[in-house]
Amino acid sequence: MEIPVLFLKKGQERRLRAGHLWVYSNEVDSRRSPLKDFQPGEPVALMNHEEKWLAWAYVNPNSLICARIVSRRQDHLLDQSLLVHRIKVALGLRKRLYQQPCYRLLFGESDGVPGLVVDRFGDYLAVQISTAGMEAQKEAIVGALGKVLKPRGILLRNDMAVRELEGLERYVEVAAGDIPERVRLREGNCEFETSLFEGQKTGWFYDQAANRERLLPWVAGKRVLDLFSYAGAWGVRAARAGAASVTCVDSSASALDLVTANAALNGVEERVDTLREDSFSALKALRQDNQRYDVVLVDPPAFIKRKKDLKEGTLAYRRINEAAMSVLGKDGLLVSSSCSYHMDSERLLATLQQASRHRDRFLQMVERGQQGPDHPVHPAIPETAYLKTYYLRVLPAL
Amino acid sequence: MEIPVLFLKKGQERRLRAGHLWVYSNEVDSRRSPLKDFQPGEPVALMNHEEKWLAWAYVNPNSLICARIVSRRQDHLLDQSLLVHRIKVALGLRKRLYQQPCYRLLFGESDGVPGLVVDRFGDYLAVQISTAGMEAQKEAIVGALGKVLKPRGILLRNDMAVRELEGLERYVEVAAGDIPERVRLREGNCEFETSLFEGQKTGWFYDQAANRERLLPWVAGKRVLDLFSYAGAWGVRAARAGAASVTCVDSSASALDLVTANAALNGVEERVDTLREDSFSALKALRQDNQRYDVVLVDPPAFIKRKKDLKEGTLAYRRINEAAMSVLGKDGLLVSSSCSYHMDSERLLATLQQASRHRDRFLQMVERGQQGPDHPVHPAIPETAYLKTYYLRVLPAL
Repeated sequence: MEIPVLFLKKGQERRLRAGHLWVYSNEVDSRRSPLKDFQPGEPVALMNHEEKWLAWAYVNPNSLICARIVSRRQDHLLDQSLLVHRIKVALGLRKRLYQQPCYRLLFGESDGVPGLVVDRFGDYLAVQISTAGMEAQKEAIVGALGKVLKPRGILLRNDMAVRELEGLERYVEVAAGDIPERVRLREGNCEFETSLFEGQKTGWFYDQAANRERLLPWVAGKRVLDLFSYAGAWGVRAARAGAASVTCVDSSASALDLVTANAALNGVEERVDTLREDSFSALKALRQDNQRYDVVLVDPPAFIKRKKDLKEGTLAYRRINEAAMSVLGKDGLLVSSSCSYHMDSERLLATLQQASRHRDRFLQMVERGQQGPDHPVHPAIPETAYLKTYYLRVLPAL
Repeated sequence: MEIPVLFLKKGQERRLRAGHLWVYSNEVDSRRSPLKDFQPGEPVALMNHEEKWLAWAYVNPNSLICARIVSRRQDHLLDQSLLVHRIKVALGLRKRLYQQPCYRLLFGESDGVPGLVVDRFGDYLAVQISTAGMEAQKEAIVGALGKVLKPRGILLRNDMAVRELEGLERYVEVAAGDIPERVRLREGNCEFETSLFEGQKTGWFYDQAANRERLLPWVAGKRVLDLFSYAGAWGVRAARAGAASVTCVDSSASALDLVTANAALNGVEERVDTLREDSFSALKALRQDNQRYDVVLVDPPAFIKRKKDLKEGTLAYRRINEAAMSVLGKDGLLVSSSCSYHMDSERLLATLQQASRHRDRFLQMVERGQQGPDHPVHPAIPETAYLKTYYLRVLPAL
């Protein structure tokens, strides 16, 4: 099989040599290798201006990121055998750190598999393919996962909006075995259930698992408010760790059904209640009702999805956190997260500080978390570091 | 007692209103309140251009940071009673998080006590005063600490070079009770001893305690190399957590004496050895000798003390980390720290990435730590966030 060459313009390999894996369309020498000559998802050999071989990649002429590197070794083409190797290397990290087989197994670029995410729920796998290059490997992916893990079921949860940027259709499909309506997973000493078919993203936010663990020493005997609770991962773990009471707030009835089921599953249903409401309105009502909490958890969906939402989204973060501070008791803990890549950690902290001054509070930032180690950061690709969680002690102004 | 007023120039209160506590000399209205009229350490009322009261501060006409805010409440002057209050608030945080009375009790600005640091070793306290304003409160500090904690001994470890910037002499003095030659402390399940008189800084680096805790799941059965080991805190904890072997490298004989004592204290002397050598030279020799490790810990003293050292210091971080990677086995863990404030977290990560490319390795950054929660960050004062620790999985290039 002859693999076509994608040539870069002079000097455009620099970022790639520094470790990055993406090629932007304006970096391609479109005289020597016109993008329109390539099929979406097609494998290419990447070469620099001097015809020096750089890496294997796959291409998508319809995307701004027109190629992604899959291997820098000439003997390692992207195929089922390379995928098996990548899965084994990724598994090596997870097995070292996790007692239970519940984690993100593959995290795209950071695990050397651009455009591919796999979450593991024991014997069940939820797969997300976000690029045409990986879509072309669909069977190899399912085959490689089957070979290494022998799962009972593999679900392709390919219904993300981002697929449209790659010209891919959106679908959900059981690719191997069976997937039950609800699957079980463990986080720390808690058991949870969720739906791989209907749940947000792949069904679970493993990226916050380590940050939830870190919350536990703070909650014994405390009143906890869990905003944007989704399936209750934060709140149920807090209750299990001894919180006096937990209120989970979410606007979705199906999310709160999961909260109720998960609270019962862990024997803490008497200390967990739910409030079906938008978190902004809920805070307003709770404040007017003079409700106070010792710990407030703010873990919203991304308010800033694109760079152009930066200003408005920042304001939303400021508003929700300021409102959260207003229902905190005298020496409270605010745990505030952002999964918006464009909201960088400095900006989020500055926003929290502004909110505190406006409420006449004094903040001590006592811990900061990022996404868990099953979502490793690729140091050359800033986009792979997206989650920030700050733990802030909120005191009266000095 | 009439307290003099320090007037700011027009508009110069903005940063202070945002929460910062420092006044720079160029922000002072020196026509209305000439700095030379003030005594070093004198209390002042801070007022803006419109004579609006802002805060209580203390002043030092000889320092670039000519005043530091100590309270924003008119009824809270800096005295023993305010110090008692600040200590109690600080203690509230530490008691919530620490099982053992071993931690940084007061962390300067972040605990509302600019220029004052106190480390607690059970019944013994090591105090560092870095400003003339706090030096003027020396007796009140000793009194307040005595009142709240009833310690057996208080040591003023006032021998830091930074005192000279404030025109203060350097000294070490037992201010109350007795201090034994070696004191004991606990970190996790380990016991350590150190010298408050002779040890680096106050005798112990509590700021890394939480990061050491986080290392433990990585070390069972592994070969660990602990560079710049000082008293062996990282290495001995790793050995206690099941590391197969630990080599502590330090250029100081007295530090290695502490390592040996601490290894014995924790029953791991058979798995901890010491190497008295500069860490750079040691790495070179170990590499030539074909020694390989599974985990390498790089926790050097600040290579960048002043901003003008940025370039040279960055190179030193790059060199030491590149050398560390060269003695790592195939799927190794590099735990790399910097306590240089001027080496920000992005720059450190970029430096590590450069080092990895130069060694043809692929990095996964799996965790990042900052200073522990007993060193809270003041979100308005970037200088209070100084410690970065990256946990990097080091793999062959993809």
